[in-house]
Amino acid sequence: MTRTLYDLAAADPDVRFSPFCWRTKLALAHKGLEIETVPWRFADREALAFSGQARVPVLVDGGSTVFDSWRIAEYLEDAYPNRPSLFGGDAGRGVARFVNSWADLVLNAGLIRFVALDILAALDEKDRDYFRRSREERFGTTLEAFCAGREERVTEFRRSLAPLRATLSAQPYLAGAAPAYADYIVFGSFQWVRSISAFEVLAPDDPVALWRERLLAAFDGLAREAPRAAA
Amino acid sequence: MTRTLYDLAAADPDVRFSPFCWRTKLALAHKGLEIETVPWRFADREALAFSGQARVPVLVDGGSTVFDSWRIAEYLEDAYPNRPSLFGGDAGRGVARFVNSWADLVLNAGLIRFVALDILAALDEKDRDYFRRSREERFGTTLEAFCAGREERVTEFRRSLAPLRATLSAQPYLAGAAPAYADYIVFGSFQWVRSISAFEVLAPDDPVALWRERLLAAFDGLAREAPRAAA
Repeated sequence: MTRTLYDLAAADPDVRFSPFCWRTKLALAHKGLEIETVPWRFADREALAFSGQARVPVLVDGGSTVFDSWRIAEYLEDAYPNRPSLFGGDAGRGVARFVNSWADLVLNAGLIRFVALDILAALDEKDRDYFRRSREERFGTTLEAFCAGREERVTEFRRSLAPLRATLSAQPYLAGAAPAYADYIVFGSFQWVRSISAFEVLAPDDPVALWRERLLAAFDGLAREAPRAAA
Repeated sequence: MTRTLYDLAAADPDVRFSPFCWRTKLALAHKGLEIETVPWRFADREALAFSGQARVPVLVDGGSTVFDSWRIAEYLEDAYPNRPSLFGGDAGRGVARFVNSWADLVLNAGLIRFVALDILAALDEKDRDYFRRSREERFGTTLEAFCAGREERVTEFRRSLAPLRATLSAQPYLAGAAPAYADYIVFGSFQWVRSISAFEVLAPDDPVALWRERLLAAFDGLAREAPRAAA
């Protein structure tokens, strides 16, 4: 069976940086499901027209077309119940959604202020105007102003990770002794930054950084071996 | 079997306001376990000396003495595996710890700035000096300065609940279709405020407030019927 994931790409089609697509790629790896990824740019509206979507990830799994990283995770869990579980049951699934909301609304909102200009620089030429215009409208300022002073702001950002740090100081993964989807949600955000920017958002001795190392090594180094944008 | 919980009390011994003790009381109710609570004040060091602890909750369950709300939840889950699960499995337990850390480090840190003076006013006379001194040292300012302008600050606080609100807009409980320990963790914080203060931290149409209503009604109104400090 063909299984295809539309995956956000930079100018270098091998640089895949979307945090949401990374969540999905790690979920697929957790389930042990083979995948073909298709590099996709923001401008490639026609390529996704079949799905009714304008954003990735979009997964085509045989006859099923599924979009939105959270919905894809739920789809994979329900369609492949005999593969390793992403949630560990209904309560685990429910609480993972809180992690998903925290990553979307707190973590990613913090990280984008470090990498928005690096994303712009790495994008394909045809995506740059769209990215600048849409993000400057969202942020209410220029990308340059939005990202200014990141070296000074990183300390405050690290403080915002306190709940993550406390959890990962007490146990090796968000899901406990072994990683599951809650880990892939949050890791996807750090892999986003790592894929597109040379800026280091974590101190090397941060328990969050040590956890990130463990997930970079997971699935035979799936994330570690992924190409990164040139600095 | 006697099962006893040492439970933080105000001057009125029936007003029990600790967010951590509320986590435990709801966990015990979820497990369907009968409990006798003992009102405890900060000054009652001797009453806890047997446990080696200076803080509550402390649970004495037959021959077991367990302290710290998280450890008590794990104890109850492991000691009573045939009762309704608090975590729904290992992954759910792992991710619930992230919720626990978020509640401790973000939610409670936000809420204390609304209620610290109300707590002081409601405490037993013998606890007031300790509370003021220890909290002013922790906060680096007077309780009066710490709590000033709460009407103006509540809008920003409500914004900090965005991950909670997004989750509870998508599903009825943090744990999904039915409540579990992740819900009791966060609810305990709101019940803390409700027990000790007349200040309303949520807008009535907030999905978080609607979820709080559902948990106030849970277990035959266990939390709703609990005495509150006089305004």
